Amino acid sequence: MCTPTATPPKWLIDSYPEILPVDPETGQTRGFGSRRHYDFSSAVYLRESLRITEVLARRYGDQDGVVGWQTDNELCCHDTALSGSKVAQQAFQDWCRQRYADINQLNTDWGNVFWSMEYRDFREIDLPILAVTETNPAHRLAYRRFSSDQVINYHNPMVEMIRAHAPGKFITHNFIPMNETAVDNFALAAPLEFTSYDNYPLGRTDLLLTGAPTEELRRYMRTGHPDFATYYHDQTRGLLNRGFWVMEQQPGPVNWANNNPRPVPGMIRFWTLEAFAHGADCVCYFRWRQAPFAQEQMHAGLLRPDNSKTEAWPEAEQAMAEVALLDIENKPLQAAPVAIVTGVEGQWVSDIEKQGEAYDFNNVQLSYYSALRELGVNVDFIAVDGDFSPYKLIIAPSLPIISDGFIEKCKASTAQFIFGPRAGAKTPEFSYPTNLPPGLLQKLIPIRVLSVETLRADCHEGLSWNNHQYQSGSWCEQLDAGDTEIVARYDNSEPAIVRKDRFTYIGTLTNKEFLRDFFQQQCLDAQIKTYHFGEDIRVSQRGNLLFAFNYSDQPQSLPLDPEAKLLLGNKTIEPHGVTVWQAP
Amino acid sequence: MCTPTATPPKWLIDSYPEILPVDPETGQTRGFGSRRHYDFSSAVYLRESLRITEVLARRYGDQDGVVGWQTDNELCCHDTALSGSKVAQQAFQDWCRQRYADINQLNTDWGNVFWSMEYRDFREIDLPILAVTETNPAHRLAYRRFSSDQVINYHNPMVEMIRAHAPGKFITHNFIPMNETAVDNFALAAPLEFTSYDNYPLGRTDLLLTGAPTEELRRYMRTGHPDFATYYHDQTRGLLNRGFWVMEQQPGPVNWANNNPRPVPGMIRFWTLEAFAHGADCVCYFRWRQAPFAQEQMHAGLLRPDNSKTEAWPEAEQAMAEVALLDIENKPLQAAPVAIVTGVEGQWVSDIEKQGEAYDFNNVQLSYYSALRELGVNVDFIAVDGDFSPYKLIIAPSLPIISDGFIEKCKASTAQFIFGPRAGAKTPEFSYPTNLPPGLLQKLIPIRVLSVETLRADCHEGLSWNNHQYQSGSWCEQLDAGDTEIVARYDNSEPAIVRKDRFTYIGTLTNKEFLRDFFQQQCLDAQIKTYHFGEDIRVSQRGNLLFAFNYSDQPQSLPLDPEAKLLLGNKTIEPHGVTVWQAP
Amino acid sequence: MCTPTATPPKWLIDSYPEILPVDPETGQTRGFGSRRHYDFSSAVYLRESLRITEVLARRYGDQDGVVGWQTDNELCCHDTALSGSKVAQQAFQDWCRQRYADINQLNTDWGNVFWSMEYRDFREIDLPILAVTETNPAHRLAYRRFSSDQVINYHNPMVEMIRAHAPGKFITHNFIPMNETAVDNFALAAPLEFTSYDNYPLGRTDLLLTGAPTEELRRYMRTGHPDFATYYHDQTRGLLNRGFWVMEQQPGPVNWANNNPRPVPGMIRFWTLEAFAHGADCVCYFRWRQAPFAQEQMHAGLLRPDNSKTEAWPEAEQAMAEVALLDIENKPLQAAPVAIVTGVEGQWVSDIEKQGEAYDFNNVQLSYYSALRELGVNVDFIAVDGDFSPYKLIIAPSLPIISDGFIEKCKASTAQFIFGPRAGAKTPEFSYPTNLPPGLLQKLIPIRVLSVETLRADCHEGLSWNNHQYQSGSWCEQLDAGDTEIVARYDNSEPAIVRKDRFTYIGTLTNKEFLRDFFQQQCLDAQIKTYHFGEDIRVSQRGNLLFAFNYSDQPQSLPLDPEAKLLLGNKTIEPHGVTVWQAP
Repeated sequence: MCTPTATPPKWLIDSYPEILPVDPETGQTRGFGSRRHYDFSSAVYLRESLRITEVLARRYGDQDGVVGWQTDNELCCHDTALSGSKVAQQAFQDWCRQRYADINQLNTDWGNVFWSMEYRDFREIDLPILAVTETNPAHRLAYRRFSSDQVINYHNPMVEMIRAHAPGKFITHNFIPMNETAVDNFALAAPLEFTSYDNYPLGRTDLLLTGAPTEELRRYMRTGHPDFATYYHDQTRGLLNRGFWVMEQQPGPVNWANNNPRPVPGMIRFWTLEAFAHGADCVCYFRWRQAPFAQEQMHAGLLRPDNSKTEAWPEAEQAMAEVALLDIENKPLQAAPVAIVTGVEGQWVSDIEKQGEAYDFNNVQLSYYSALRELGVNVDFIAVDGDFSPYKLIIAPSLPIISDGFIEKCKASTAQFIFGPRAGAKTPEFSYPTNLPPGLLQKLIPIRVLSVETLRADCHEGLSWNNHQYQSGSWCEQLDAGDTEIVARYDNSEPAIVRKDRFTYIGTLTNKEFLRDFFQQQCLDAQIKTYHFGEDIRVSQRGNLLFAFNYSDQPQSLPLDPEAKLLLGNKTIEPHGVTVWQAP
Repeated sequence: MCTPTATPPKWLIDSYPEILPVDPETGQTRGFGSRRHYDFSSAVYLRESLRITEVLARRYGDQDGVVGWQTDNELCCHDTALSGSKVAQQAFQDWCRQRYADINQLNTDWGNVFWSMEYRDFREIDLPILAVTETNPAHRLAYRRFSSDQVINYHNPMVEMIRAHAPGKFITHNFIPMNETAVDNFALAAPLEFTSYDNYPLGRTDLLLTGAPTEELRRYMRTGHPDFATYYHDQTRGLLNRGFWVMEQQPGPVNWANNNPRPVPGMIRFWTLEAFAHGADCVCYFRWRQAPFAQEQMHAGLLRPDNSKTEAWPEAEQAMAEVALLDIENKPLQAAPVAIVTGVEGQWVSDIEKQGEAYDFNNVQLSYYSALRELGVNVDFIAVDGDFSPYKLIIAPSLPIISDGFIEKCKASTAQFIFGPRAGAKTPEFSYPTNLPPGLLQKLIPIRVLSVETLRADCHEGLSWNNHQYQSGSWCEQLDAGDTEIVARYDNSEPAIVRKDRFTYIGTLTNKEFLRDFFQQQCLDAQIKTYHFGEDIRVSQRGNLLFAFNYSDQPQSLPLDPEAKLLLGNKTIEPHGVTVWQAP
Repeated sequence: MCTPTATPPKWLIDSYPEILPVDPETGQTRGFGSRRHYDFSSAVYLRESLRITEVLARRYGDQDGVVGWQTDNELCCHDTALSGSKVAQQAFQDWCRQRYADINQLNTDWGNVFWSMEYRDFREIDLPILAVTETNPAHRLAYRRFSSDQVINYHNPMVEMIRAHAPGKFITHNFIPMNETAVDNFALAAPLEFTSYDNYPLGRTDLLLTGAPTEELRRYMRTGHPDFATYYHDQTRGLLNRGFWVMEQQPGPVNWANNNPRPVPGMIRFWTLEAFAHGADCVCYFRWRQAPFAQEQMHAGLLRPDNSKTEAWPEAEQAMAEVALLDIENKPLQAAPVAIVTGVEGQWVSDIEKQGEAYDFNNVQLSYYSALRELGVNVDFIAVDGDFSPYKLIIAPSLPIISDGFIEKCKASTAQFIFGPRAGAKTPEFSYPTNLPPGLLQKLIPIRVLSVETLRADCHEGLSWNNHQYQSGSWCEQLDAGDTEIVARYDNSEPAIVRKDRFTYIGTLTNKEFLRDFFQQQCLDAQIKTYHFGEDIRVSQRGNLLFAFNYSDQPQSLPLDPEAKLLLGNKTIEPHGVTVWQAP
């Protein structure tokens, strides 16, 4: 059972037009006629949402046929986290008063002395939108924090309301990627039993490879890129460090990407097994039946509008049988050997301060993840305040804001740590550490970032490591290496990567080949087993099951141990096929 | 004599600001200072337009010096068919009440149950603009239908007013392409004596080839693309199935394209003869004299501002002499052997539901037309309710909405029919046929479209026909071919083109080579004579005159019958030359 | 001491919201939160600006520690010259009344009979914004003139106020390029003691080479393009024909370009000497210390936030020592042998009437300048009413509006003159000369421009001069050469460049090779010495010092006279090095 708050009805909007959000890019009110036309700061809409949720929860909360609840739908989809409305402005002023207490504190924290931006009273504060040129990054960071809080403040009471009237039933929400919502998904997930994800590998691949060369897109246009689905599966699982659901799984061509190819035969089963391998407890397909009207009439279902079964149907049946055969659901989720530390603050910093057009939080994080996955290493995504103890290797691709607590946790851990560029580069109020970046991280790695340059993506230069030449580019920090060990160097022989004890700092963005080779070496050093079976093969482990997934249209011989006990598929993995064997 | 309604004066706008239209993309009022600043839904402006029209018609209606009338100017140019104003919204509500009578009927027809979009009263209906994400396609289709009706409801009374006071004088309007206005030009043309067209081959070529590779643009930048002028001539003629005028013919460089080249010497004469060959009864040049001020001061005329004659002058004189010599005006317009069924609903569907970025109504229709024209076949454009009887071959490149009446007319005809992809794919209220596409067309071709995929334009694949390999791409339908004959197949051997008796269905977009070869075969089968004289030669027939037009800068020997009686030019056609011979 | 008017405080904005400017592209008010949020037409803001200026000037005007004054900051930066506000509209109406006196005169001058654009009263006049399609170019030209006047009317009283209270102290302003502000910088500079310029070679190179091929950007990404800094130095010096200051010199990576590279080692010293060579009397670096907060926290300074010295520090010290050694400051500024006639009207015409997407005032002017600079020729920028007497060669790359007075000055001069395409092509009220372009210029060069064609930049054709083939493209005028001498021809043998006595007219845009070779010949004819030392070497003269600047990363042997007296550097000039020798 799902609450209907994603689509407020017309009569409600007409009664309370202040429910409508305002586009912060244009100042234009976003009207009725599609969905998500509500402002998270609207007290009226919160009240009305609780009212309908209560009615539903009271009526269906104890019914046996309702096994659990989903709240709303894809919160913040269509860029709705931010609103430029008057109610948002007033709420933001209150939020600022709450956070800073004294307006002079806010002025100091934001550096408002710059460009005469001081406020005399919280009621003077504007939203950081529609100004002549760029607004204060500290102001924008506060606006992002506020907007994220508003989403959570809107969502939490709904969860409580359902829980009050539906005891013993699970409550979940179907997340879309954090990099699309810019909301703190860890906080949003906190009150839920488990998280869910809506998995559209082809739509996402089409959008993410917009502008990619022909062969790059063609290669994956009907399979999805090998790392785009699991990148989000692993993040979704990490929000609560618990099994998750795929609430929506693409069963055929969708309607919303620029181009909407058909999955290659076998991919529905493939994606289903892949989700289970990465910790899914359930995979639902969206939609059951293709709707013959309105906005999504070209979105495939398991059934066509004439109730005939699509190709997805037997594939889903096959996947269900195989999940049962392998007893995947009951395989315990073990901690991965490697953790990626993530968090929405990195996203915010990257969005707010471009500095170079080629630096993007999500691309950086995905490139690190993808290199690890090509090595066949399981990866957990954890928050800065997560549990570090299970991991041999902890990697922070983009962690500009860190705290003393984080430093203490790193010191207390025994893991190897790798930090990507920009780590510790900002204070919590978006200023530049006066002792220079990496700021607090200097307690672990005593270096100073003397300057940062950004280069156009096609103007990369060399990076020398382990007697090989790789690429450096896009973001290049000049390091005063102090007494750290220099691991890799730029073309001009200056340090690019340094290490101090268990802590490595990468001062530049690099290419795929470097990340793969470098992480291979780190895994070797940390005694983490890798399965590098080829560019289009991905290996994952769940419990004692090892899965190989072949994203290519060619069969390939897997270099398995001759003793390996095959549970599904063959050692010569089929095109778009899956092979499962028992972990040694 | 032309009515002046395209440019309402400032005093009128200041008296009635509600005349101004609103940009539906931004919600911004479109102000005074250029032209076409009026809302087709403004009752005030309709009243004022009738007032000035009546004054003019009364004063000049019976004067001998006024041979006929043109209404307004290029209706809907500058994207003015749609308005997002309050008066448009109220008129739309009334229009909906008229069409659907019952608000529940509207909710059902539009599928408003989706995303809680139900209305309780017609007065609740918004325009489908400025929403959070895409609005209901049925809502948008209604808005397009309404907007088209508003243009016709504005225009018809003006025609009646002129006719009342100018008996015996012709009334025409200078159309711009339907694909730019998204208005039903067949309906708009209905009350006129004849239609007119404003022909700007170079401006149009520059805009349509924006982004094309250098050599593709360079080849035609001073001649225009071989099919862009006649594509619109033939459509303009088809609106009333009657001779037409070129009301404006480009005589030199214009001012409004991104780049404005000079025509190659001879093109003014060439384009003039070409228009006559395609059914023009008159060609006027715009402008007589280049205006030395305001927006169009860089738009060439027959005369320069100093009254000296441009190169266009002697060319126009030559063309006039040749038209007289050949007596073209008196050559009857015969039905072409091939008809293309067209209509604005195909345009609307393509605009509203992209599904893939490479599908575009106008590009699809133009590609079909261009293939036929390269074969030297005359083409008529007809409406779905046109007369099918004269044609041996009837082609519908993009006809998503069809009716029972259309099906009956097809059955009653003896012609061969070819349907492009997406035929019958939508109901009249923009929903998906529950018995699957091609919907009603199943009565002619008993197939089912199981799914549609769209691919990026550069990711095409193979199409196998007649033992040759062609391309399939952009839009690929998966067909359950039933008991139809499979004519062509995709790479995976599934059916791509099928035929049942006289009815052929093409389930995919293909390349130019396929269309040309396939239509060549269809013409052969239907005993339609073709003249495939080369990529840059176009052959047209009017009465007993056969014309060849050479768009290239090289002479070329025409493979004419040795007995052919030459009336103009030579068998070796000159660069940018015209050869005319008598039809056998 | 700088006046603080560029950043009005929040309390003032809240008291007088009408201070805020309106974006003429969107109609949206541009709010508080960054800088320059004021409307030049706001009488309130003028009053308040004078109030704060008076307070500052009274308090600090006679203090010894204050050596001089800078007004505001980078006037019109962030596209703030134009405002679409109500106060701007009213001021524009008043300005029109002042200029045209009679509304019928305005209607006639603007050609408002076209498209029924006549006004009956000055109070009816709109700003030429937010219309359905393009507005009257005469209307837009008036709006630009008005907007420029408003900036000057705002700025002049501030200068007067400071002068009244700070007698004997200099007053300057830090200009940004005229092509970014579209304001008459000559008029703006008039009341100042000297002009200043903010020099950001890398930021500017990144932005100007956006979209350039990889190698073109990579070559200069850490040095700046060889002509971008001096192009603006020479223009800044020309505003008052007097030594200028670099008020801000980039000392490291900045924060505002799309990509922000680090200068190559040595460039801070290089750029400093370069500025002095081109007439600077002082070079300041922006910033002294990198600010650790707000919008510019990633903008490098001479010091880092921890007060450590950046690489720029010793380079600045070296430059200071070398400036002293060479005694550059005391070298007189002599008139250059070549002058470029410039003015904002050419910019306005180019902005308002594109006609072809490849014609751009600034690109045309820069291409002419760059060709001269590659020849090592000093260049002065002068206004149409400047002193022509010192020059042997006067070049007007883009001078569409000229006056009788200008013609008389040309006749009275003994210099050679070269006019670029479009010279004299518009009357002062933006109409087309009825005797055809080049209008008044016909008194010097009796030709007629019969037509203009514009071609896409990649569709260039040939230009034949001096038995060599060059390129013609983008803008090609068809000339009736009359009895002038034909200097160069198009592919079709028609005249492209003509000469009459001392006056040469170039009717087309050409390529770099042509301009360089052609100007080389003109310099030879005019007995102007050239120093063409290679594509990346620039030679400049100040007093009796000759400077060579090497923009490449390779050493190069300079072909100096064996007797040349070296004052700095070597005959084999170092990569990114400077060599200075004594003029013979």
